[in-house]
Amino acid sequence: MGKLIIVAGVPGAGKSTVLTEAWKRSEKDLKYTIISFGTEMLNLCQAAELVKNRDAMRNLSPDLQEELQWRATKQIAERPENTLLDTHCAIKTGSGSYLPGLTPRMLERLSPKAIILVDAHEAEIRGRRKLDKSRPLRTIESYEDISEHKVINRAYAAAFSARSGCLLRIIQNNTGEFDKAVDEFVETLKYIAQASSGATA
Amino acid sequence: MGKLIIVAGVPGAGKSTVLTEAWKRSEKDLKYTIISFGTEMLNLCQAAELVKNRDAMRNLSPDLQEELQWRATKQIAERPENTLLDTHCAIKTGSGSYLPGLTPRMLERLSPKAIILVDAHEAEIRGRRKLDKSRPLRTIESYEDISEHKVINRAYAAAFSARSGCLLRIIQNNTGEFDKAVDEFVETLKYIAQASSGATA
Amino acid sequence: MGKLIIVAGVPGAGKSTVLTEAWKRSEKDLKYTIISFGTEMLNLCQAAELVKNRDAMRNLSPDLQEELQWRATKQIAERPENTLLDTHCAIKTGSGSYLPGLTPRMLERLSPKAIILVDAHEAEIRGRRKLDKSRPLRTIESYEDISEHKVINRAYAAAFSARSGCLLRIIQNNTGEFDKAVDEFVETLKYIAQASSGATA
Repeated sequence: MGKLIIVAGVPGAGKSTVLTEAWKRSEKDLKYTIISFGTEMLNLCQAAELVKNRDAMRNLSPDLQEELQWRATKQIAERPENTLLDTHCAIKTGSGSYLPGLTPRMLERLSPKAIILVDAHEAEIRGRRKLDKSRPLRTIESYEDISEHKVINRAYAAAFSARSGCLLRIIQNNTGEFDKAVDEFVETLKYIAQASSGATA
Repeated sequence: MGKLIIVAGVPGAGKSTVLTEAWKRSEKDLKYTIISFGTEMLNLCQAAELVKNRDAMRNLSPDLQEELQWRATKQIAERPENTLLDTHCAIKTGSGSYLPGLTPRMLERLSPKAIILVDAHEAEIRGRRKLDKSRPLRTIESYEDISEHKVINRAYAAAFSARSGCLLRIIQNNTGEFDKAVDEFVETLKYIAQASSGATA
Repeated sequence: MGKLIIVAGVPGAGKSTVLTEAWKRSEKDLKYTIISFGTEMLNLCQAAELVKNRDAMRNLSPDLQEELQWRATKQIAERPENTLLDTHCAIKTGSGSYLPGLTPRMLERLSPKAIILVDAHEAEIRGRRKLDKSRPLRTIESYEDISEHKVINRAYAAAFSARSGCLLRIIQNNTGEFDKAVDEFVETLKYIAQASSGATA
């Protein structure tokens, strides 16, 4: 079975950009595959002809959503290659409530080596969301709301790490620090590779 | 079995006021009963003729307190109606230590749909405590101590939510925002009602 | 079996100084023994002729490290006397990642009565590290990095406390407040002694 690393971050922190660039730079040595939890779940839904798009998944009953989440988890855990799993620590729902992105049984099955949280200052996150033309209808959250989401993300990440015993890495991705963020991501992947083989001095 | 929602918040955040008003506004549609964990435990103590008042409960042995806490939990979990359970994430003891208000087995038995944390700025909480004539002897904690309690409350709330997989909602209840706080509380109750029936788009 | 209390804090918070002074002041009444988790593990390593010094422990395979950690845990849990266990909530590794200092099974076996976190302002921690002549080669972390470590320490501490149901006490140890910090530590030990015997009013 391959090593699995969970990558999370609030929308606008730059998770996907940092993740993709780190993957490119480390590909030759470290050989990870990037997969998205949401996409895996959507594929399962579409294969079962349950829904046509991602938004429609939310209309499924909670029991069915849980069942699909669990099936996606089992599929991901069985992948033979090393995996960077793009997902969420805290999913912010329509009502402003947070839902933990991982349950105890998901954590146990996925058995991650690390959780990497990509983060940025509230002001930067807010600015990036405003500039995101792909989602023109998205409500722009206040600075305070983004700050709260960041705090809850960290608290969930620490709770997940405490439960599964895996590493927790927080990477700051502010303007002008993108290369540093990618370097830190790659360094973390290297550290995990070394730690797994027992040489981390 | 009814749906159970845990409502918590540091003293002075306005938990009871927001909770009671949200209950009034939502009563016609949502039908919740408010119960207080402390009162349930006290009732059990008094029925067993163990103590005469709430303060005396603290003099019981830890084993007996735990036994009573567990009996209260089982009673609450068996209630057939929907319940808003007024309790604490972090109980601040006389020594300045925090005690988690919920244990893993309590969480498992209660199986809450959500934890709603009513919060406010440190300065507001401090001001409200000063004005609380019902507790003239209470020591007024410093801004820093209140801030620490708020941080620990959130961390426990996230740990509880991560363990039980339930929603976590934080509601700000600052001066001039009471109606907004109540609206958000009611919206969260509606969201939970919809989510349970599988329609949250 | 004796009572066990976990004492943690980031390097530079003054954990050992506060711990030692509190132990001296409370010794007559409370009778605790101070032990360090790291030293216990090192002793096991050296007894098994696996390593010569603490740094070399990191070169052991993860499986062997885990085995030694578990053996140290079992030894500590079997101590008949009251124990103040000097250890870490979040261990900061070379890669900048955090590793939780306690796993669920360690917590279950140790069954601590409390976690005491010794803390200080970021600026103070940074200053103390700069003045620490015993470790001249240590990289001095930025204010932001120390702040992050403090946040993660608290989040782990809350997750550990939520899991094991034990008390959590945070003690501030800033310049000019050393005596207050020691007093609070001793008060917490007294509170735990009283709580265990069932009289905490």
